[in-house]
Amino acid sequence: MKKNIFVLSTFEMIITFLFLLIVINNSQSQGNSSKEYSKIAEKFVRVALQDQQGYKLLEDLCKIGHRLTGSENSLKSIIWAKKTMEDFKLDRIRLQKVMVPKWVRGNVEKATIIQSKYYKGKELHVAALCPSISSNGIAGEALEVKSFDELKANSKKAKGKIIFFNRPMDPGNTNTFYAYGSAVNQRAQGAVEAAKVGGIGVIVRSVTTKHDNNPHVGSMGYVDSVIKIPAVSIGLIDADFLSEAITREPGLKLKINLNCKTYPDVESYNIIAEITGTEKPDEVIVFGGHFDSWDKGVGAHDDGAGCIQALEILTLFQRLEIKPKRTIRCVFFMNEENGLQGGIEYGRYADTAGEKHIAAIESDRGAATPRGFTIQSETATLEKIKSWLPYLQKALIEWVQPGGTGSDISPIKKCKAFFGYVPDAQRYFDFHHSDNDVFSAVHVREFELGSAAMAILVYLINEEGL
Amino acid sequence: MKKNIFVLSTFEMIITFLFLLIVINNSQSQGNSSKEYSKIAEKFVRVALQDQQGYKLLEDLCKIGHRLTGSENSLKSIIWAKKTMEDFKLDRIRLQKVMVPKWVRGNVEKATIIQSKYYKGKELHVAALCPSISSNGIAGEALEVKSFDELKANSKKAKGKIIFFNRPMDPGNTNTFYAYGSAVNQRAQGAVEAAKVGGIGVIVRSVTTKHDNNPHVGSMGYVDSVIKIPAVSIGLIDADFLSEAITREPGLKLKINLNCKTYPDVESYNIIAEITGTEKPDEVIVFGGHFDSWDKGVGAHDDGAGCIQALEILTLFQRLEIKPKRTIRCVFFMNEENGLQGGIEYGRYADTAGEKHIAAIESDRGAATPRGFTIQSETATLEKIKSWLPYLQKALIEWVQPGGTGSDISPIKKCKAFFGYVPDAQRYFDFHHSDNDVFSAVHVREFELGSAAMAILVYLINEEGL
Repeated sequence: MKKNIFVLSTFEMIITFLFLLIVINNSQSQGNSSKEYSKIAEKFVRVALQDQQGYKLLEDLCKIGHRLTGSENSLKSIIWAKKTMEDFKLDRIRLQKVMVPKWVRGNVEKATIIQSKYYKGKELHVAALCPSISSNGIAGEALEVKSFDELKANSKKAKGKIIFFNRPMDPGNTNTFYAYGSAVNQRAQGAVEAAKVGGIGVIVRSVTTKHDNNPHVGSMGYVDSVIKIPAVSIGLIDADFLSEAITREPGLKLKINLNCKTYPDVESYNIIAEITGTEKPDEVIVFGGHFDSWDKGVGAHDDGAGCIQALEILTLFQRLEIKPKRTIRCVFFMNEENGLQGGIEYGRYADTAGEKHIAAIESDRGAATPRGFTIQSETATLEKIKSWLPYLQKALIEWVQPGGTGSDISPIKKCKAFFGYVPDAQRYFDFHHSDNDVFSAVHVREFELGSAAMAILVYLINEEGL
Repeated sequence: MKKNIFVLSTFEMIITFLFLLIVINNSQSQGNSSKEYSKIAEKFVRVALQDQQGYKLLEDLCKIGHRLTGSENSLKSIIWAKKTMEDFKLDRIRLQKVMVPKWVRGNVEKATIIQSKYYKGKELHVAALCPSISSNGIAGEALEVKSFDELKANSKKAKGKIIFFNRPMDPGNTNTFYAYGSAVNQRAQGAVEAAKVGGIGVIVRSVTTKHDNNPHVGSMGYVDSVIKIPAVSIGLIDADFLSEAITREPGLKLKINLNCKTYPDVESYNIIAEITGTEKPDEVIVFGGHFDSWDKGVGAHDDGAGCIQALEILTLFQRLEIKPKRTIRCVFFMNEENGLQGGIEYGRYADTAGEKHIAAIESDRGAATPRGFTIQSETATLEKIKSWLPYLQKALIEWVQPGGTGSDISPIKKCKAFFGYVPDAQRYFDFHHSDNDVFSAVHVREFELGSAAMAILVYLINEEGL
């Protein structure tokens, strides 16, 4: 008799029953973990917002002052950080030695109009870029340009002049990081390009859309083959003034006075703490920000906030009494702003220490309300992370998408996925690298939601792997 | 012969050809309009961010001061608004008369500890709620409660006392409007509930999570059947102080001094301007905020920003030289805070004027970076609007979802869809109804993105209908 396909043998029935059991069980455990994840995500958010612990730590840190790489203040802050980690009784607290540049701003920082019918004696609000040489009181006419092309086209006029790079950061772009990137070459390579055509000094419009008079500083480069000339940034109000003044009186003469100086490299440190995994201690989820700042403001947003958020991920796990099965590690990277020596050193360690880095997360875009995460990974990993959006949304994360992640984690070669934490960035460049970057510019709820957003991400990676 | 189904008659061929033509044409125009919409959305964003026109208008408005319903300042602001609309040469500029309540804070506003071993003479930072009666120097012991239930449970102790409602706004909830809603009954109905059990006055913890000492004011209610008692709000620092003081010394006595007063209703106005539609002038897309504010701060976020964003939608259409086919109308609603008379009057007009309101949009959640739109509409309309997300995202709108929209537009009965503009709200209640709500608390880029987000929405509704 031909077997009826709807009549099952006992064996088949048992197999089918077991299969159904597995399916039901799986879907239940899926359901449970989904609910469980939601609950834990909500807890991370609630505890962060209620305790405000990280915010208070950031306040303490900011009271020490700026954390310019190689400065005495930077060392004081490192000691504070290590002690803070010890007070939390975290695991394997370490200082990882790195040699870093040491540049000191000095106490003279002036640009003065010294020859003019209308403006003689007017002082402009400028600040040395790093590692500018001192100025030796250079003086000359100012030549305003908006781009390197314009400079080249006017190269005959440039000799002996102070080159004034005055291209604004585009205010019309909602992607402020893109707008910043499109203007910052004036600051980064302006001194080299100016020197190539005979310029004797450089004044760069601050890369910001905030219309005040605080210069926004930052790093710039020299190359061996081109003579070094001094370089300063200028606040937007004075940049606009200078532009108008030059238009009115093309021959006016400026003098720049700086006594900044570069010293031999000094010893500094990455600061590292973790909660060692209970089941897979060799699998590492690393997260951090850069601990160095500029010496204008105190680096509250850039990147004190990112460091303290990373530390708070660990203390949120403690407060929720979650013992991670994988190692979760916080790194305060040294010297992102002018050398990346900390990132490079940690990358070297990560790729050779016999551990397996599965994820690296960076927070270095300020402390405003969460918007998303950028990710560098294989597509399957990206899709997995996208499926976690319902949990991440508890901390107001709206999206995960491919994109650049972070400088400090970029030297790590062996790592499954890199993440950049992306908060709202409409006001970030108001503060960035300037006297505006102070603790009072950080909002407690917005800051704490960043800690919670990353803690949820770390929790999910720890639970699910990548 | 049976007709081969693949052999078409001439007539059928012509029909097929015409059909294909329509399909191709449609898909082309779809493709074109999609690109066109993207380009126009980007333009709205760019022009808003570059010009900062609305932001400058908001600054002018805020210089006039607060706009409490019925106040002289409010009338000055109405004149400014009408003149501003006229300067832009908008269509059909109108003042729509409404009778509104008039309540005046007076010049005495004190709560003093008058009997205490430790704190005698200490003055607390309080502000009258509206329309509180004057206090006639009431004095009594303070009884702290966290809820109406707790008050009822302690009703025997309440007689002759000043009831101190001290339940905090929940800081652990990311939905700050929900947290506000969960605490605000103490302010709204506290005086009635307190009077019912014999209380002689009310002090309410400010409904905010901002830990400073500015009282956050707002409306409260009396009912005819219950005796009216004076009511004030108190800043969080003094609320915490008072709670500690009462715990330490339960019998301490307070005196409240207020000379606020309610006057007969006065005449005020909604202010309306539009760009009349070229093809369907009777189809109206209305948008606005409320023009009245409290008399603490100047109502920069609440809701000067919403009004000026609405006005800027019209001027963005002008600047982009888009002549809408439907009528697009901006309304500055009067008296949302303590009566909604402007909203009610406009609703009456909208439902009876022989026009067809197809969409009503309200901006009354502050001027931070855009996050989404809440919508009240049929499902098909909601789905249509969701399909516009790629264009709305140009202004950083991440989602559209069902939800409550706005008080001022709620009296309109005949309207296809209602929209609430939802910016980030983590810091909104820092400012709300307090001296913190000043122009400097509004960020230019965040504000302008709100104008752009709503302009894109209005543009799409105008083009596509609902």
